[in-house]
Amino acid sequence: MIVTLLTDFGLKDEYVGVMKGVILGIHPAARIVDLSHQVPAGDIARAGWLLDWSYPYFPAGTVHAAVVDPGVGTSRKVLCLEYASQFFLAPDNGLLSPLLRTIRSPRVREVSNRRYALSRISQTFHGRDIFAPAAAYLSKGVKPHRLGPSLRRFQTVSSPIPRKVAGEIRGRIIAVDRFGNAVTDLTDSLIRSFRTSGSRDPCVRVRRRRIHGISLNYQSVPAGRPLALIGSRGLLEISVHRGSAARTLGLRIGDLVRLS
Amino acid sequence: MIVTLLTDFGLKDEYVGVMKGVILGIHPAARIVDLSHQVPAGDIARAGWLLDWSYPYFPAGTVHAAVVDPGVGTSRKVLCLEYASQFFLAPDNGLLSPLLRTIRSPRVREVSNRRYALSRISQTFHGRDIFAPAAAYLSKGVKPHRLGPSLRRFQTVSSPIPRKVAGEIRGRIIAVDRFGNAVTDLTDSLIRSFRTSGSRDPCVRVRRRRIHGISLNYQSVPAGRPLALIGSRGLLEISVHRGSAARTLGLRIGDLVRLS
Amino acid sequence: MIVTLLTDFGLKDEYVGVMKGVILGIHPAARIVDLSHQVPAGDIARAGWLLDWSYPYFPAGTVHAAVVDPGVGTSRKVLCLEYASQFFLAPDNGLLSPLLRTIRSPRVREVSNRRYALSRISQTFHGRDIFAPAAAYLSKGVKPHRLGPSLRRFQTVSSPIPRKVAGEIRGRIIAVDRFGNAVTDLTDSLIRSFRTSGSRDPCVRVRRRRIHGISLNYQSVPAGRPLALIGSRGLLEISVHRGSAARTLGLRIGDLVRLS
Repeated sequence: MIVTLLTDFGLKDEYVGVMKGVILGIHPAARIVDLSHQVPAGDIARAGWLLDWSYPYFPAGTVHAAVVDPGVGTSRKVLCLEYASQFFLAPDNGLLSPLLRTIRSPRVREVSNRRYALSRISQTFHGRDIFAPAAAYLSKGVKPHRLGPSLRRFQTVSSPIPRKVAGEIRGRIIAVDRFGNAVTDLTDSLIRSFRTSGSRDPCVRVRRRRIHGISLNYQSVPAGRPLALIGSRGLLEISVHRGSAARTLGLRIGDLVRLS
Repeated sequence: MIVTLLTDFGLKDEYVGVMKGVILGIHPAARIVDLSHQVPAGDIARAGWLLDWSYPYFPAGTVHAAVVDPGVGTSRKVLCLEYASQFFLAPDNGLLSPLLRTIRSPRVREVSNRRYALSRISQTFHGRDIFAPAAAYLSKGVKPHRLGPSLRRFQTVSSPIPRKVAGEIRGRIIAVDRFGNAVTDLTDSLIRSFRTSGSRDPCVRVRRRRIHGISLNYQSVPAGRPLALIGSRGLLEISVHRGSAARTLGLRIGDLVRLS
Repeated sequence: MIVTLLTDFGLKDEYVGVMKGVILGIHPAARIVDLSHQVPAGDIARAGWLLDWSYPYFPAGTVHAAVVDPGVGTSRKVLCLEYASQFFLAPDNGLLSPLLRTIRSPRVREVSNRRYALSRISQTFHGRDIFAPAAAYLSKGVKPHRLGPSLRRFQTVSSPIPRKVAGEIRGRIIAVDRFGNAVTDLTDSLIRSFRTSGSRDPCVRVRRRRIHGISLNYQSVPAGRPLALIGSRGLLEISVHRGSAARTLGLRIGDLVRLS
């Protein structure tokens, strides 16, 4: 059974390794996969998107432990969401919001049963003391209801939803990847519905730049030139062929993207 | 059986991957965990602390291979320490010192039996040629005495020990983590003994800064403000709530920390 | 069975984690090893060397998936090379060239059978959609001929070969490692043949600098001084004892290295 880890712990300290020691101590057969530990410190939104984009590629039974947790040590709860035959552990700070957007009646529990935590719980490292053991026990077959009671209320962070305004769709940049590709919140299906309604190829506008049409691949334009395409997440991305759209076009997370 | 790796090799070269290939070639069922590969090049002290803080969270039988080894290729020995039902492989350069401080009669062996090394040993990469195979064989059940003879003498690096001077405890900063938290060598128990002897809340002084009291968690002070707390290692840490103590207060490894 | 991953994806996005999810979904018992994900974006040559230096340390049956793929989404093929009882998946862009140099009649196939790919193939992430599933199936025992037809022609990038000119051997720097060691393409055996033919210790010249003799280890010279030695890859390296040759001597990939 797979346990994934998603944190802002970085790789220079012992934090991630110690979480793995705890998990394997409880469940020696667990298979541990790092989603990322390079989430910027405290960047809950970033972690939420990463998780949302990753889980569809994991098999049933996978346990995801997402620990971007600026509220560690306070009374904020730890959540366990059961969805798509997978389990998602996260602090109750809005991290699960991107996932929860599409779930009608989410099955969420509070992780509060100390039997499934380390015997000594620190004030600063619940990744080790609560998340790692809970993930290990879940991956070992412990049922979620053993971890704690059902929850009706939990934090969600509402992010702006792409909308049609005056004949155009307005979205925004929600991530910039390692290559400088800017990922927007405009979905494939939204764009397709827009395209069929219009007659011409759409025009993408971002930071006073216009990009004409939606390309099939990076090579549709000469090297160094910007393009828009549907990326691997099913979302519109702004890229520069063999370059960095973020750098070349000065794009940043939160930038408005308009499709007309 | 778990093998952990702790090196200063970084992740851009093939060094760590190759060590894992060697380990899995010898012991296909070994479970490999990275403690860190971002130890600053040659920083033996840093590696020693990391190992000391990590091993308590690993199960019995775990083999730790710590390769921060500026003396590679010389006649420095390779050590195998058996402690707490775990095994610790390290160069004889003082790396094991933080661990050894607390061990009365350490059981240390020299790793010298070439049967448990690669057939060709390079002058520059004993991580691959000696440490990886020795770790693999130990994790497979080979007894430490097979690796080489007992050793009585080995390198230790004595680090200053926190001490009480004129009614205060003096320690120092021994690590700065990813978030900018400054970890001191002042232990929980030392501080507790100090607190019971005094009547008032202690005051922590570092770099002409005074921090009053020891907080329970980061949120005990407003965002951006410094605090002192007992961190996840059972050591006093200087932090800034939602910020970096290292940057905000200009803290560095080696800085004096006084508790009064 | 081991699957290694070598990419330029970095570790901040979900790309590598998602590839692992796909692999473990298809073959839960696969053992995944990261060679590196820090290959500079699009640096095919770097990936090729890394792979060439890594595979000899992996056991028979290992599947290597190397995804440095600036041509993703075009008609460039995906290759499967069978060699030394291991499997190498890579884009048909020259990445396998360092490996192929030494193979007389390479057994290469095109990976084109969609049965061994994800059902939906994106234009930008074949690592997830083609490489990961193909690697998983190979590691599970699927025979290479099931993946696609034999190929006679594929891209190779010819790199300059070290040669003897006017009594000296001329090579170049092909990599700089984490420590600043500069790795050349001058092999141990080439240097040995040169040494036996001459009477005196060779002199290494690089960037107007002369280094006399080939040292046995870093400690053969005082700290801070440059030296040449045969590194862990069986190649001549330029190093600085307890320092960075790249920084101290201003060395860069492509620099001419002369042995006389």
